[in-house]
Amino acid sequence: MSADPLRSLIDGRPNDAVSVLDRGLQYGDGLFETIAVFAGQPCLWQSHIARLSQGCARLGFAAPDADALRDDAAQLTQGCERAVLKVLVTRGQGGRGYRPPASAQPRRIVTLHDWPEYPEAFGEHGVRVRWCDTPLSANSRLAGLKHCNRLDQVLARSEWDDPAVAEGLMCDESGQVIEGTMTNLFVFSNGALQTPALDRCGVAGIARDQVLAAARQLALPVSMAPLDRQAVLNADAVFLTNALIGVWPVAELAGRTYDPTHWPRDLFARVVERCRQP
Amino acid sequence: MSADPLRSLIDGRPNDAVSVLDRGLQYGDGLFETIAVFAGQPCLWQSHIARLSQGCARLGFAAPDADALRDDAAQLTQGCERAVLKVLVTRGQGGRGYRPPASAQPRRIVTLHDWPEYPEAFGEHGVRVRWCDTPLSANSRLAGLKHCNRLDQVLARSEWDDPAVAEGLMCDESGQVIEGTMTNLFVFSNGALQTPALDRCGVAGIARDQVLAAARQLALPVSMAPLDRQAVLNADAVFLTNALIGVWPVAELAGRTYDPTHWPRDLFARVVERCRQP
Repeated sequence: MSADPLRSLIDGRPNDAVSVLDRGLQYGDGLFETIAVFAGQPCLWQSHIARLSQGCARLGFAAPDADALRDDAAQLTQGCERAVLKVLVTRGQGGRGYRPPASAQPRRIVTLHDWPEYPEAFGEHGVRVRWCDTPLSANSRLAGLKHCNRLDQVLARSEWDDPAVAEGLMCDESGQVIEGTMTNLFVFSNGALQTPALDRCGVAGIARDQVLAAARQLALPVSMAPLDRQAVLNADAVFLTNALIGVWPVAELAGRTYDPTHWPRDLFARVVERCRQP
Repeated sequence: MSADPLRSLIDGRPNDAVSVLDRGLQYGDGLFETIAVFAGQPCLWQSHIARLSQGCARLGFAAPDADALRDDAAQLTQGCERAVLKVLVTRGQGGRGYRPPASAQPRRIVTLHDWPEYPEAFGEHGVRVRWCDTPLSANSRLAGLKHCNRLDQVLARSEWDDPAVAEGLMCDESGQVIEGTMTNLFVFSNGALQTPALDRCGVAGIARDQVLAAARQLALPVSMAPLDRQAVLNADAVFLTNALIGVWPVAELAGRTYDPTHWPRDLFARVVERCRQP
């Protein structure tokens, strides 16, 4: 990819600054997608754009034009081998005050970023993971959305500096385990998958959908049910997913190590493959 | 005040656009203060700046220099009869990813806005208020802060269009009444004040502090305790506060009217007076 640290389009035009009156800045009034780019192609584009549109509908503003987003993406990713494309859509400009102006025009902000330098070994040999103290905010109206109110994740991710710890797991205020700071969480025990329901908090990741689809292909049973810490520690295998990493098996969580011979590697391979599709 | 719809300083320089990489835009990773300006003076300046500093400490970044903020405010409010000064501080620029960069430099964004055209009668005769369906997100790590993750308030404020309804009351997910979309809430019954504790959600308003101080001066007992909807409906009087409005008594809530002869007008007068102090 280009050595340019940032390439940025706002509403389709090269621009790296947004009005201070943008409601994204004022209130986190927006949504985003973080999209893997391989060989000049944004991966799982339709899934990302569908989720974004659904998010706009839930927040009550018009989704940006899908063709315009496609053009933005093409402009930034052309000739780009490997990168991260971030699509951020805000409710647009507004006056002071929470009330969304009737005249608000959603704003699309599309930026290209370096691929993160995660060690290749993370996918193969697994990662070390910790518990975070910062709880996830619960609100059924916002649950599942990848919206721009992300202080929970920011505070959780600032709990550790150790580069050997790849991710932190977050619970809701009742102590149920929900997800990682930037990943969804699955446990695998006795041949069955379990992942938390995301109806009160959490982000319904695009890679999470790929796990569910791959599990169907492999006829693996999946349940969505509350998971407490002990259930995560007791599982045969635990793994984390997002659209950039695909799958990271958990090798160690707070001193508990997971035996790699129990990891569902055929499932992992399918998820990773699905996450690389255009 | 100036007819200029927006006057804006970023880090002390006239500028109305901020980098798309600012963490305020990316994650709502910031805090703000909404400050009344009367006769060229920001009101309750020290209280606002103290709250802002405490918020920065809780989010884990350096507070902006108080003298620099004072200079920004002076530059914008000079000769300004009546306006709203908004001070927004973000964690500054960052790369992609939730982790706050060690090198982040907090950014101060100070903007001047028109005074909102609330009818004068609101303070004297009270306002009509409704219940909102959107719940408040609960998170003890963020409770009390005036941070930039405000989708709860945005969604709640978009529940109604009727200009005759001045405010909406919000509950947490367990149904306890917490505050208005832009105000704190007090009830008054049998000569005593009650207001919800804000240890799980809500914003600890500067005007709320003025109510507590004025109540001490008048030797009115105040309790901070959970309030359910019925307790609000049963109260002798209900009122709302923020730094711009001072006090709005509630005249009607969802069909229930409150008898103005029960309103603690001496308290209201003291709160309004306190909210006009520099």
